[in-house]
Amino acid sequence: MEKRSFQDFYPDDYSHCYGCGRLNAKGHQLKSFWNGDETIARFTPKEYHTAVPGFVYGGLIASLIDCHGTGTAAAAMYKKEGRAMDSHPPLRFVTAALHVNYLKPTPLGVELELRGVIKEITKKKVVVDISVSANGILCARENVVAVKIPDEMMK
Amino acid sequence: MEKRSFQDFYPDDYSHCYGCGRLNAKGHQLKSFWNGDETIARFTPKEYHTAVPGFVYGGLIASLIDCHGTGTAAAAMYKKEGRAMDSHPPLRFVTAALHVNYLKPTPLGVELELRGVIKEITKKKVVVDISVSANGILCARENVVAVKIPDEMMK
Repeated sequence: MEKRSFQDFYPDDYSHCYGCGRLNAKGHQLKSFWNGDETIARFTPKEYHTAVPGFVYGGLIASLIDCHGTGTAAAAMYKKEGRAMDSHPPLRFVTAALHVNYLKPTPLGVELELRGVIKEITKKKVVVDISVSANGILCARENVVAVKIPDEMMK
Repeated sequence: MEKRSFQDFYPDDYSHCYGCGRLNAKGHQLKSFWNGDETIARFTPKEYHTAVPGFVYGGLIASLIDCHGTGTAAAAMYKKEGRAMDSHPPLRFVTAALHVNYLKPTPLGVELELRGVIKEITKKKVVVDISVSANGILCARENVVAVKIPDEMMK
C-alpha cells in the first residue's frame, strides 16, 4: 500500500479541511489510500465522538464519509487522466450530495474501516459508494456525489 | 420563543452527543427551538470548521442537520402525543438516513440558520426537511429520517 495518503498530496491551500486536512491541528486528519481498485481509510473515533454513551456520533460518520468520498474522487480522477497525484494543476473535489443510511449503531472504542468503490466518473463528477464497518460489521452505507471544486472556492 | 431548547430537556444519559449534548464539553452543543410549526437552530462555526479557507466544512453541516433533525423529531413526537418535553418516559430519536444536497459553498464567519419542517410523523418515525442558510442565502437542503432510539442503544 502506498505510504502517502491521498490527502498528503493535497496542496497546502487545500489542506485545512476539518475532516482531513493535514494542516488542521483540531481536525480529524482522515487519510485515504488505494486498496486495489477500491479505496480504504481507517479512523478510531475519540471518546467524545459519542451519540449516546458507547456509540459513535452519526455526524462524525457522515464527516468521515465526506472526506473519504472527495479524496477518492480526486484519486480516481488523477488515475483516469493518467497523472501523478502531485502533478499540476491539482485536482480537488467537493461534495455536491451525500446520502447516508445508518444500518446499525456503531460501537465506540474500535477502529472504523471505510471502503470506497467508484461507481461513476465523468469529466467533472465522481460518484463513490462507501461502506463503514466496525469490527467487521457493516454499520453504515453511503453514496457521495463529488464535483470538481467550484472557482469561487479556489484562492 | 421557549428559552429552553429541545436538547436541554434530554435526560443526562442522552446529553453526551458530540453534536448537541449539553454535557459534551468538546461538542458543538447545538440547540433547537420551535418557531411556529417549524423548528430553528442557529450555529456559528469555529474558524477551524473549514473545508477550504473561507468556507464551512460540509461534514459539520451534515452534523448540525443530524442533531437538528433528531431534536425536531423528538419535539414533534412529544407534541403529537400531547406530552410535555420533560415527561416520562423520555423520547429520543436517532438518524436512520440522512440526505444532504450542498447547493452553494457556505461562507465561514457568519451565523448559520437551520430551519426544520416536519414532513411525516408515524408511531416510530419522523421525517424532517431541513434548510441551512448563511446570511439569508440557502446553502444546503436536507432530509432526515429519524427513528425512535433502538433498545440496544439505551442504558
